[in-house]
Amino acid sequence: MIEKTELQAQIVRAAREVRETNPMAPSITNTVTINFVANAQIAVGGSAAMVYLPDEGEAMAAAGPALYINVGTLLPVYEETLPRTARALAATGKPWVLDPVAVGIGELRTKLLASFKEQKPAIIRGNASEVIALANLWGVAGDGGASQVRGVDSTQAVDEARDAAVALARYTGGAVAVSGVVDLVTDGETVAHSRGGSHFMAEITGSGCSLGGVCAVYAACAETPLAAALTAVNVYNLAGARAEAKVNAPGSFQVAFLDELYRATPEDIAANPFDLEEA
Amino acid sequence: MIEKTELQAQIVRAAREVRETNPMAPSITNTVTINFVANAQIAVGGSAAMVYLPDEGEAMAAAGPALYINVGTLLPVYEETLPRTARALAATGKPWVLDPVAVGIGELRTKLLASFKEQKPAIIRGNASEVIALANLWGVAGDGGASQVRGVDSTQAVDEARDAAVALARYTGGAVAVSGVVDLVTDGETVAHSRGGSHFMAEITGSGCSLGGVCAVYAACAETPLAAALTAVNVYNLAGARAEAKVNAPGSFQVAFLDELYRATPEDIAANPFDLEEA
Amino acid sequence: MIEKTELQAQIVRAAREVRETNPMAPSITNTVTINFVANAQIAVGGSAAMVYLPDEGEAMAAAGPALYINVGTLLPVYEETLPRTARALAATGKPWVLDPVAVGIGELRTKLLASFKEQKPAIIRGNASEVIALANLWGVAGDGGASQVRGVDSTQAVDEARDAAVALARYTGGAVAVSGVVDLVTDGETVAHSRGGSHFMAEITGSGCSLGGVCAVYAACAETPLAAALTAVNVYNLAGARAEAKVNAPGSFQVAFLDELYRATPEDIAANPFDLEEA
Repeated sequence: MIEKTELQAQIVRAAREVRETNPMAPSITNTVTINFVANAQIAVGGSAAMVYLPDEGEAMAAAGPALYINVGTLLPVYEETLPRTARALAATGKPWVLDPVAVGIGELRTKLLASFKEQKPAIIRGNASEVIALANLWGVAGDGGASQVRGVDSTQAVDEARDAAVALARYTGGAVAVSGVVDLVTDGETVAHSRGGSHFMAEITGSGCSLGGVCAVYAACAETPLAAALTAVNVYNLAGARAEAKVNAPGSFQVAFLDELYRATPEDIAANPFDLEEA
Repeated sequence: MIEKTELQAQIVRAAREVRETNPMAPSITNTVTINFVANAQIAVGGSAAMVYLPDEGEAMAAAGPALYINVGTLLPVYEETLPRTARALAATGKPWVLDPVAVGIGELRTKLLASFKEQKPAIIRGNASEVIALANLWGVAGDGGASQVRGVDSTQAVDEARDAAVALARYTGGAVAVSGVVDLVTDGETVAHSRGGSHFMAEITGSGCSLGGVCAVYAACAETPLAAALTAVNVYNLAGARAEAKVNAPGSFQVAFLDELYRATPEDIAANPFDLEEA
Repeated sequence: MIEKTELQAQIVRAAREVRETNPMAPSITNTVTINFVANAQIAVGGSAAMVYLPDEGEAMAAAGPALYINVGTLLPVYEETLPRTARALAATGKPWVLDPVAVGIGELRTKLLASFKEQKPAIIRGNASEVIALANLWGVAGDGGASQVRGVDSTQAVDEARDAAVALARYTGGAVAVSGVVDLVTDGETVAHSRGGSHFMAEITGSGCSLGGVCAVYAACAETPLAAALTAVNVYNLAGARAEAKVNAPGSFQVAFLDELYRATPEDIAANPFDLEEA
């Protein structure tokens, strides 16, 4: 299990390198929050580029150091785009982030998410219900438990997804981030709990999607998927808490949150409260 | 004709139940304002989920207590998605809201909007030109008059659409909300005029679309389509007026408006100025 | 070469006529920034309408006095929509604005952008790398130089694209606007440099896309493509500088920027610092 001080040093280095090198982390993501994803990626120091077509997904897999796939609002062309992009990513070994939004709803969604088992995303980002459902879909959690996905919302607490998250991370060799009141991030060996954030993050759309996009930005620079995911989760908890201290309604929160993502320093991000335990 | 005090009591109950039960009102809606629709739905206490694919529309019709269909930016797949979703809704008898954006433009739009005559949306939400054009398309208004749709904008005043709105409501057995300086809501028996709002609501994109989404949220809990639509129209007029009192430009207005949607209490919403008359 | 005072008078007239006549400038544009495009168009006094389908593109070409085509996030249906819309525009002689986002990425994008050579957009709006790449694709710049497009970002300075911009403008008979720290606008005879703006314009998504949409709004009323493009570039530099004076982070900047677009008077826009030279 990694030491906390070492993980904090990795967080500082990842956040700093992102600010210095402005990595492009292209996305194939849903239309609801696509603007917020791009603005969040830019606010932490990265660059955004979104595509829908199969050969453009492949071009992005070739051009970007890391990529983000979010299956929120599937379009028919995704049936070809997502497998071709995931295969291109797997072929290059580049890290990519999967957000299995609303896993379980619809035939194409299930088929695509099942197929990603082969390409092993470096980071899986979801709410508790989605992480449990994906572990069940992939058959990696002996006792994954029942998932209760309701549209895009979770009806379950983060720690109910602990076993599923650990099992998924062990299977992929990457990291899994489960979003909730206290966020859980694991690489299958270490389990981190990161604190902070704001109730407003569940009262605007796009906190989760944009966190996935920001995971991809950090994955472009971080030493491990765990460090990338925890850097992203920490900056979200930090910015959420700071924004909530300044505003008291969700429209203002959204603006203040982007502002605080932009202001967070690498040292601030590493210092956001989190603790580690054995998986 | 319903008494004003009884309608106000229904508004309080609908708004309260939404806050307490957080109903999910899924949408098939345009990409221009999809984020604003979701954030407005969440701000009043509901939950959002957006889809494009036919079987996902059906899944949402099964999962949500009410649904929102807005034909703003049609995609080719809508040719299959919208009829299948509307039929699934009609089969369950669940309330759904139709926003006939830009009715009259394009072949698919006309075909889809004509077909919805059979499934009878519980609430129709549009501007004056759209409501007149839909009444003409469905052939329900003897003297509907000429509609002048210009893109997504109305060129006609709300009261020019009074007869069309009443005729549509009598045909569907639901409610019709016509947006303008003073909003009109009718169930074919009672005509309500709701006051307030802000000129800024016409100077940002998405006031109308998001009002449709919020109608669907209240339709999940309200006793009647009229109560649902008037709750939505009232909270929009209330939040618009309150936001305008705080800001003086459209970017700030958008933020303040979401904030005020969030702050509005059930009692505030019921107390927003409106009056009733026989249809 | 036009006199500065005459160009300023044209800017005042264009901006004033937009405020007075509220022209609709429909768009076919990417999903990332579509909301920002619409809100920016409305903030300067225009009206927005977005479509995806072929016959709706044609209907918009017939209905609007000017149109905006941005190839950011191509969908499969664009293969039919964009050529049909461009042909409809060329047939009517109406001005339209092309934003060749990420030119060079993907087969369809290259094919569509190559085909637009025939329909000659009145205004081309892009960053330096995109303008150079388009000039090379169209074969209009003898020594266009190498383009370095990275996703949606430019890696080159505005003046590196001077020759390409002049060559494109001479070919189309319209204007070309190159966005960067100092913006360049040319009609192939006069080269204008417009100053102001803010570093935050590169730290949010959509500054460039929405500038293209605003170019289309002014093209509906301006006497020449050069006047339309420079009115748009000037109001962007003015609003950017004013917004930056009020805020210090990108979320707040986005809001303040829309506010300042709304507040800018025709005289303010004409007075924004710019200078002219022979092409």
